[in-house]
Amino acid sequence: MYRLPEPDRIDSELDAIDAWWRAANYLAVGQIYLLDNPLLRRPLLPQDIKPRLLGHWGTTPGLTFIHAHLNRILRHNARPMLFVCGPGHGGPAMLACAWLDGGYQRTYPEVSRNAIGMQRLFRRFSFPGGVPSHTGPETPGSIHEGGELGYSLAHAFGAAFDNPELTVACVVGDGEAETGPLAAAWHSIAFLDPERDGAVLPILHLNGYKIANPTILGRMSDAQVESFFRGLGYRPIMVSGDQPRAMHWLMMAALNTAFAHIDHIQHQARAEGIRFAHPPDWPIILLRTPKGWTGPRQVDGLRVEDFWRAHQVPIANARQDDAHRAQLEAWLRSYRPDELFDAEGRPIPLLTALAPPEPLSVSPHADGRSGTPLPLPDWRDHALAVPAPGAVRGEATRALGHWLAEIMRRSEATRNFRLFGPDETVSNRLEAVLDVTPRAWMEATMPYDEHLAPGGRVVEMLSEHCCEGWLEGYVLTGRHGLFACYEGFAPIVDSMINQHAKWLKVARGLPWRHPIASLNILLSSHVWQQDHNGFSHQDPGFIDHVANKKADVVRVYLPPDANCLLRVMSHCFETWDRINVVVAGKAPMPQWLDADAAEAHCRAGAAIWPWAGNENDGRTPDIVLACCGDVPTLEALAATDLLRSHCPDVVVRVVNIVDLMVLQSPRAHPHGLSDGAFDALFTTDRPILFAFHGYPHLIHRLVYPRTGHANIHVRGYTEEGTTTTPFDMVVRNRLDRYSLAIAMIDLLPGHAGRTEAARHHMTQALDRHARYILDHGEDMPEVTEWRWCP
Amino acid sequence: MYRLPEPDRIDSELDAIDAWWRAANYLAVGQIYLLDNPLLRRPLLPQDIKPRLLGHWGTTPGLTFIHAHLNRILRHNARPMLFVCGPGHGGPAMLACAWLDGGYQRTYPEVSRNAIGMQRLFRRFSFPGGVPSHTGPETPGSIHEGGELGYSLAHAFGAAFDNPELTVACVVGDGEAETGPLAAAWHSIAFLDPERDGAVLPILHLNGYKIANPTILGRMSDAQVESFFRGLGYRPIMVSGDQPRAMHWLMMAALNTAFAHIDHIQHQARAEGIRFAHPPDWPIILLRTPKGWTGPRQVDGLRVEDFWRAHQVPIANARQDDAHRAQLEAWLRSYRPDELFDAEGRPIPLLTALAPPEPLSVSPHADGRSGTPLPLPDWRDHALAVPAPGAVRGEATRALGHWLAEIMRRSEATRNFRLFGPDETVSNRLEAVLDVTPRAWMEATMPYDEHLAPGGRVVEMLSEHCCEGWLEGYVLTGRHGLFACYEGFAPIVDSMINQHAKWLKVARGLPWRHPIASLNILLSSHVWQQDHNGFSHQDPGFIDHVANKKADVVRVYLPPDANCLLRVMSHCFETWDRINVVVAGKAPMPQWLDADAAEAHCRAGAAIWPWAGNENDGRTPDIVLACCGDVPTLEALAATDLLRSHCPDVVVRVVNIVDLMVLQSPRAHPHGLSDGAFDALFTTDRPILFAFHGYPHLIHRLVYPRTGHANIHVRGYTEEGTTTTPFDMVVRNRLDRYSLAIAMIDLLPGHAGRTEAARHHMTQALDRHARYILDHGEDMPEVTEWRWCP
Repeated sequence: MYRLPEPDRIDSELDAIDAWWRAANYLAVGQIYLLDNPLLRRPLLPQDIKPRLLGHWGTTPGLTFIHAHLNRILRHNARPMLFVCGPGHGGPAMLACAWLDGGYQRTYPEVSRNAIGMQRLFRRFSFPGGVPSHTGPETPGSIHEGGELGYSLAHAFGAAFDNPELTVACVVGDGEAETGPLAAAWHSIAFLDPERDGAVLPILHLNGYKIANPTILGRMSDAQVESFFRGLGYRPIMVSGDQPRAMHWLMMAALNTAFAHIDHIQHQARAEGIRFAHPPDWPIILLRTPKGWTGPRQVDGLRVEDFWRAHQVPIANARQDDAHRAQLEAWLRSYRPDELFDAEGRPIPLLTALAPPEPLSVSPHADGRSGTPLPLPDWRDHALAVPAPGAVRGEATRALGHWLAEIMRRSEATRNFRLFGPDETVSNRLEAVLDVTPRAWMEATMPYDEHLAPGGRVVEMLSEHCCEGWLEGYVLTGRHGLFACYEGFAPIVDSMINQHAKWLKVARGLPWRHPIASLNILLSSHVWQQDHNGFSHQDPGFIDHVANKKADVVRVYLPPDANCLLRVMSHCFETWDRINVVVAGKAPMPQWLDADAAEAHCRAGAAIWPWAGNENDGRTPDIVLACCGDVPTLEALAATDLLRSHCPDVVVRVVNIVDLMVLQSPRAHPHGLSDGAFDALFTTDRPILFAFHGYPHLIHRLVYPRTGHANIHVRGYTEEGTTTTPFDMVVRNRLDRYSLAIAMIDLLPGHAGRTEAARHHMTQALDRHARYILDHGEDMPEVTEWRWCP
Repeated sequence: MYRLPEPDRIDSELDAIDAWWRAANYLAVGQIYLLDNPLLRRPLLPQDIKPRLLGHWGTTPGLTFIHAHLNRILRHNARPMLFVCGPGHGGPAMLACAWLDGGYQRTYPEVSRNAIGMQRLFRRFSFPGGVPSHTGPETPGSIHEGGELGYSLAHAFGAAFDNPELTVACVVGDGEAETGPLAAAWHSIAFLDPERDGAVLPILHLNGYKIANPTILGRMSDAQVESFFRGLGYRPIMVSGDQPRAMHWLMMAALNTAFAHIDHIQHQARAEGIRFAHPPDWPIILLRTPKGWTGPRQVDGLRVEDFWRAHQVPIANARQDDAHRAQLEAWLRSYRPDELFDAEGRPIPLLTALAPPEPLSVSPHADGRSGTPLPLPDWRDHALAVPAPGAVRGEATRALGHWLAEIMRRSEATRNFRLFGPDETVSNRLEAVLDVTPRAWMEATMPYDEHLAPGGRVVEMLSEHCCEGWLEGYVLTGRHGLFACYEGFAPIVDSMINQHAKWLKVARGLPWRHPIASLNILLSSHVWQQDHNGFSHQDPGFIDHVANKKADVVRVYLPPDANCLLRVMSHCFETWDRINVVVAGKAPMPQWLDADAAEAHCRAGAAIWPWAGNENDGRTPDIVLACCGDVPTLEALAATDLLRSHCPDVVVRVVNIVDLMVLQSPRAHPHGLSDGAFDALFTTDRPILFAFHGYPHLIHRLVYPRTGHANIHVRGYTEEGTTTTPFDMVVRNRLDRYSLAIAMIDLLPGHAGRTEAARHHMTQALDRHARYILDHGEDMPEVTEWRWCP
């Protein structure tokens, strides 16, 4: 299937590929440099050159080389393929190839394949009002913005999961290969099922240099690099050199070998029914070329080609300096544009003939077109029966697990839903899903292993980076999923969230990009339930981080109980182009709302819980007790209970917030309550004690423009943690029921006399707690066995 | 030197090591389970068992095994050694060994080496008021909290840099080995100079399982794992099995081989003067043992030993369930405690004799004792001459580079200062340091390479995780350094900052830990100077992240010019136990303050710039224009300039903030200005326009308790970015001079009529900007050439 061309065809094949490569390189250099005179039909003048030269040449010729050769494969063997370009700086290469293969025109018709379009292609690149210098949302055929470096391979594998027909060619730069996330992602083949997943062909581009340094892998010997990848389980295929004709030959042969081997593996798995003892030895191409290949060898006497100086703009002063401009012109002409483009600037038929019928730049997997809806079961079918607030206990994430299992069941045929997480699915009490689908696993198994098999749709690796990156790749190619992890370790992927939020913000503005499923993140085993693992596991800061993102993109939910969690999650799975963060605990807790009440509460986002307060007879509240998060809600209700028994004349209003963004002004966030609605909930003049799951600052930051915000006193996590009891965690941070009750008493004006006894009671309870845990090593029964008794 | 024992000594050596191992395992299990009856001198009763069982057994026997064998090495060959325990859950193991080797008693004398001390050791573990379940600051001999997993190896190499006598034994769990940061850190040998650095001996503990899953490396074949590490450049030594006697033999031999090979490499480099073409093949021990080795094989009929069920507490109900308790007792007695501890509970002489004279748990490298001061040059010697505000231009980070170069020069003998960063030293304009010391590099070099050599003290790898982790290891062992990176990518290490901040918070409370140099972070190539790289590179959120940490620990500085940057950095290098974050640009900018003024300004943290405003004649200001960050300061001053020429009767006060934390209340942060001082700066009743470097929310969050905070209107980064011109970046986020001037006009009450013309002028300027950049692709001269003309 992947035979080399017949002998009498070889030269013409090579000529076509080389022509494509030269054309793409010409178009890339043109984008970096030229405002005008795109075809060099006259000598280059200063005003032909852009005043600011922004772009990266170094990685470009390698990318165009790969693209040209992949076209040959696609033309001879039509197969769905996605091209993930790890070196994000390679924008000029990807745009040049998209212009050549026709994909650019399908997206932006005005950038036509002729002289006018070529000039537009050049001018708009890295130009105000144009397109950025990187591959990104604006790049046809791309699901990846490579600016930050590190996530290309995880994106590629995420795209390949459950896409059996798809092959993802993923170029990894040797700079990116030094990053941790990328280094971990090589292990992704331990989870890739050759039967039900697609293939990933990594192409490690060893061009030897980063911005100003050699790369580590670039300086290692061939033998070492091969040993490294063999150790990882790959079959390395080396393509190394700098002579174009020879390199075309080698690359042709390498790609034939690689694709034939991919087909062989898939045939073994799919037709021969072979079960592999270890992951099959998927091919990887190790492409060693000079950095800035075919560019200027030297500029001003300094080495450029095959050196880090080729990284960005090799000839810096082409507009001002005649010698530089002459060198640029010679460089451009070295690609022989007159042979590549006709009089009207159109690519010659040799080039257009190389473009495959479905070019890489128009993959339906890249723009959301391939998406299929998720068969979502009704969450109410899995709701807990809650006859009255606090009447039963339940584990929120366990209830969620049963509903997720039903999603897994319903998506067995479509295979468009996955759960990703770092070895914490069971710890987070989501294990019901494992009754429906195992964990994906291609490595060796033992007879006593549980829930491990190829094709499983729970994917667990102790790498938050991989889990989150796979989910991104999965949703970016039209599927649905959930990343569940310990709240405390979610900041590991802070920067990935940044990049995905940026992607979404830009992609939403591009009409040709279809919506993609939201990136859903469940934070469990949260700060208040890490008493056993200690301080290192206690950090609620991830929601602060996401709250910085564009309001259109982020949502943060803190459901107080199981039914609210189900309702919130169901909503999240029905949204598009967002990042939804849901915080929910796994410990047994009192349940507050039945399905109907949960539906109404989550729809409102925040509401008075009249059954929890005592303003029902029309009395105006003396104080508002707000709560957000499951543990703060529990403590707030217990505090209300205490206050009502010790100071029955104090009128308390309890407000629960499930959708954190309602606190923001509607001018800042689409979910923001109107000022009137906010004031109706919180009053404008009563003291407000706010029991919050996370860092108190976050609440202040959200409510600062509200009328009553000066009345708000927030309790939350103040970074006081260790290995201790669960109740001691809230005591240490003064978020416990007694401390909240004391705070309420202290906030009540004129109550000092009447409430002295109550205050004394609370203080004594805290003393009792302190002694009790030292004596017993566990929490006193009065807090663990407390029940809501209205 | 590392010969095996003489034949007639072998059995007694093995007996001693095995006894140590059994004793340590006994003590570890005791910590997890026992409240009382520490020596099992009577049958185990329910009340002897802790009510909550918190701790991790699975990794423990491997750690105690390694510790026992390292003791033998240390006893026979005294050498400074540090033990980095990657599996943070292995707290019981490390504490048991510290109790046995005497280090625990040096730190906590009450935990004596007898029955009383043993009971205290057991009781305080994972108990309220006691010590956490993890290795961490409280653990004698530890520089590492392994809770998050991923950073052990980077810490180990950071400790070894410039510590030529030190060997760091670093245990990496096969769970941790799946993380990205750890995977990248294997490459650290590319930077480790065998002549001037110490050695790291990684011990990869392949016990096969994580919480609920097998590990990837654990299931790979020996041949594959060896190929992987050979590819990385290591010399793997496999120690694999489950029979204790045979395993002791293998481990003895393996450590002898490993240490002999380390000595050989160091001898080659130090005595023979050999220059390596690639990094030498440092040894790595691949230790394959069962998880939970020597623990219960089965519990309730389910596999435990050599399976993931051994991860945490293998026998769950020992207090309530008689059968469980009997199994626990049998397990404890299997270590034969009566043979290991005498009647008073003291370890028998065989054990104490194995403890080396300088035990692992009292390393001076672990508690800050080994620290040496940094020879800090006077920053004023490198200050820029600034005859008048705005009179000259300068590049802040370039000036800093010259001062850093002087630090490098002065620390040539002490070798206690390093600069870490991801290939951005030159891009961030700090390249003057390279004139003094090259970049560390052990891989192959080419004749045309620049500034690459073994022993260089600039360390660059395209992994923020490694750079930051190395710096942590470096300062934790008593040295000094700086991590410089692009602001936009600093969030990659958000979670590492979390963990280091937690370490500092706890360590500061331990009297036996000496202060360590602050973790200094320079964020350059910041959001406003990433116009060329585009949206993915534009993110100022890292300072939001650090601002969440404990106030005692964090400082955030935004110096407005070069002299302030020098002054701030000089201060940071003189602080201890902190995380200092400094944001400074690299582009040529007007300079505002001479050295004296910078000194005064940075000392104050925030001040009125009287020369910039026009209240000098005693007029009260109509409006306050606050600015924080170099680009916002520039735009704010230009806006003032505009306002003064177009609305000369408006009185503007300009306040510049260099120390962000002064904005917080003094109750929230030690640097917080008193309310009086804050009000004196900002007034209580005037509108305040705040031009801020980062996300506007951060300012609101910091100032919400201040009197005049409702008057504050913040402009900052609102996530509007792309590849464009520098000035367009500020325009897009409405932080430019024209938008600021318009905002001031709009904030002035009653000025509408008089300022209509001024407003029109600004709006026209913005229109002109929009047209100009579309036409020219660069900023209009009136903004790039603007000068401050008071």
